[in-house]
Amino acid sequence: MEISPLARAFPDLPEVAGVTRATANAGYKDWVRADVTMLAFAPGTTVAGVTTRSKCPSPEVLHCRQALPGGTARGLVVNAGNSNAFTGLRGAEANAIQVAEAARLLDCAPNEIFTASTGVIGVPLPTDKACEGVRLAHARLGSASWLDVTKAIGTTDTFPKAAVREAMIGSTRVKLVGFIKGSGMIAPDMATMLGFIVTDAKVSAPLLQQILESANRRSFSCITVDGDTSTSDTVLAFATGAAGNAELQTPDSSGADAFAAALADLCRELAQLVVRDGEGASRFIEVRVSGAVSDESAQQIARSIANSPLVKTAIAGGDANWGRVVMAVGKAGEPAERDLLSIRFGGVEVAARGAVVPDYDEAPVTRHLAGQDVDISVDIGLGDGRAIMWTCDLTHGYISINADYRS
Amino acid sequence: MEISPLARAFPDLPEVAGVTRATANAGYKDWVRADVTMLAFAPGTTVAGVTTRSKCPSPEVLHCRQALPGGTARGLVVNAGNSNAFTGLRGAEANAIQVAEAARLLDCAPNEIFTASTGVIGVPLPTDKACEGVRLAHARLGSASWLDVTKAIGTTDTFPKAAVREAMIGSTRVKLVGFIKGSGMIAPDMATMLGFIVTDAKVSAPLLQQILESANRRSFSCITVDGDTSTSDTVLAFATGAAGNAELQTPDSSGADAFAAALADLCRELAQLVVRDGEGASRFIEVRVSGAVSDESAQQIARSIANSPLVKTAIAGGDANWGRVVMAVGKAGEPAERDLLSIRFGGVEVAARGAVVPDYDEAPVTRHLAGQDVDISVDIGLGDGRAIMWTCDLTHGYISINADYRS
Repeated sequence: MEISPLARAFPDLPEVAGVTRATANAGYKDWVRADVTMLAFAPGTTVAGVTTRSKCPSPEVLHCRQALPGGTARGLVVNAGNSNAFTGLRGAEANAIQVAEAARLLDCAPNEIFTASTGVIGVPLPTDKACEGVRLAHARLGSASWLDVTKAIGTTDTFPKAAVREAMIGSTRVKLVGFIKGSGMIAPDMATMLGFIVTDAKVSAPLLQQILESANRRSFSCITVDGDTSTSDTVLAFATGAAGNAELQTPDSSGADAFAAALADLCRELAQLVVRDGEGASRFIEVRVSGAVSDESAQQIARSIANSPLVKTAIAGGDANWGRVVMAVGKAGEPAERDLLSIRFGGVEVAARGAVVPDYDEAPVTRHLAGQDVDISVDIGLGDGRAIMWTCDLTHGYISINADYRS
Repeated sequence: MEISPLARAFPDLPEVAGVTRATANAGYKDWVRADVTMLAFAPGTTVAGVTTRSKCPSPEVLHCRQALPGGTARGLVVNAGNSNAFTGLRGAEANAIQVAEAARLLDCAPNEIFTASTGVIGVPLPTDKACEGVRLAHARLGSASWLDVTKAIGTTDTFPKAAVREAMIGSTRVKLVGFIKGSGMIAPDMATMLGFIVTDAKVSAPLLQQILESANRRSFSCITVDGDTSTSDTVLAFATGAAGNAELQTPDSSGADAFAAALADLCRELAQLVVRDGEGASRFIEVRVSGAVSDESAQQIARSIANSPLVKTAIAGGDANWGRVVMAVGKAGEPAERDLLSIRFGGVEVAARGAVVPDYDEAPVTRHLAGQDVDISVDIGLGDGRAIMWTCDLTHGYISINADYRS
């Protein structure tokens, strides 16, 4: 698979005190690469998470959901090459067996082990390989770099994706590192976005959850590649507390705002990296909607534009086809008045008051669309509701990845 | 544009008493073809219609909506090559001027003229060409065949689409002829499904409306090519009454059931023909959902499957990728239980009770997917709700039509 033209270089990432890493080759597929990742966390590490809204979630997602209320984590195990999704009771058992083995090795409760799997749907995780994988990884804890683990959680990602932020809590500088895999649905039977954030900040689990959910609403929930939601999407945040700051317990704690801002910013970068690795993507598209009757309404309209195959193919063709944007606004089902709408590409107004602008000059718009980063903004003209979505264009590459291939 | 591999031959269509036809060349684009169509109806013709749910409808749609309550029709005018959508006040005026000219020529009220336009968005219909077009067409009334008018309403349709049915009302045999253009969004800036049904049955306007709405829910509302809803979708039914049957006035009128069944059947054929001309389509897909908590819920799930780019690309690749169907059920947001789901391709059960069936033999499924007509059926296992959707696969052809082209 060729590297996405929208790829970003892997950043320099610092160590995060309280976290050790390892990878191993469980051999879930017939390949020579690491496909099991283990992170071990210092005692006292808190955890938060958001998972897919799919009504058919994987056993790993169900395990994380029931473990999250405990609020503490000692280990993370990620399997690549087998999603263990839609595998019935056998899949749930396989997950429980791997969790139990990791808990035994890390000397903690099963509810302090978090898991995620990505890959083929419908094949139960082979328990012998899964347990051998965590044993191998455990024996090597401390040996893997951030780049190693980022590569090991990937499936058909075309480049490794990670980001880093810092924040000051009182006089303590804390670090946040995130790494992520996926691009909506990267390839046949590969169907997951998995993101992991680790920080040395000391944050209570309930506050970490609140901050992660808020960040998620402005990052991972604002991206779409093809509108197809996975059975296994998972984002987990782990806070080891090793930085030694006074624990953040409520949104009013000193430094909580700065930490939340850094985490939100980190999530936004990770989310955008996923779009930059979108299947067949040749352009990164930011869709901004303002003037809707509410933020929720703006989000629906932005999502309708970002998911429209006709808008996405127009951008792929470098075509300033604002009529398709009108269509996508119209089909969103949200309040809109044709004669109040205005549409801009790259900041240039192309349509307003229900028609194309007088003396419309397409040249600057065409120049904007020739670049890799495209901005579409729509003002609905009815209220103060705002939203942003990030997506990519729809190209022959998407079809090649998903149809010209026999899974 | 190559003819769709799923095309059907144009049927033999009978005359319908009380209807005369003509086409003319208004020259909306620089082409040599008929682009204005006029149908004239005998006095007493009743009318019913359903139009797009877009929040940004075209002036033609708004005109039809305000004219429909009158219940009578004397003329239909269809423009091809210019949709007149999103053209502000000038577009509304252009529509009113063309309607007035047609009303003058046919000696009726403007509210007895129905209009539809399809083509480029954002360019007001040129009133001189539009009026000259209806004058030319009016002078030639009676000269055009059904094939002529079906071709004249088309834009980038790859084959002309029409169907015929008969029904007995008492001892009177009545005819229903329908013709249609579109395939969701056929080509850049072409964005409309227009369907027209004429019958010589005598049917009151309120009953015709009721029957058409019911048929629409089981036909045009059950198709999707790319999930992108047009600003201009319109289906109109005209009943001249020339057959001389006792007027159908209520659903209990003798013969009303037979007429409604024929009309619904006609609409289903027309709707399926549109899918068969879907952009880039190489396979016709029927999605059946049963066992949902309600018919509405089943419809949402069926729509989620039929609109999923990953399901549609899998079918394009001949790939029995039931994991993607699970994904699409899961993302629909409707009640579903992973462990109660079952999935069939071409009648062969592939997944049940939350996992692939034991000893799954892919061979018969692969044979089914090698054909042009593909059946996907899903049982949710929770209730009695049922729905059907028809769609096509998603191929390189779709991208070529919509992206490799500068509008």
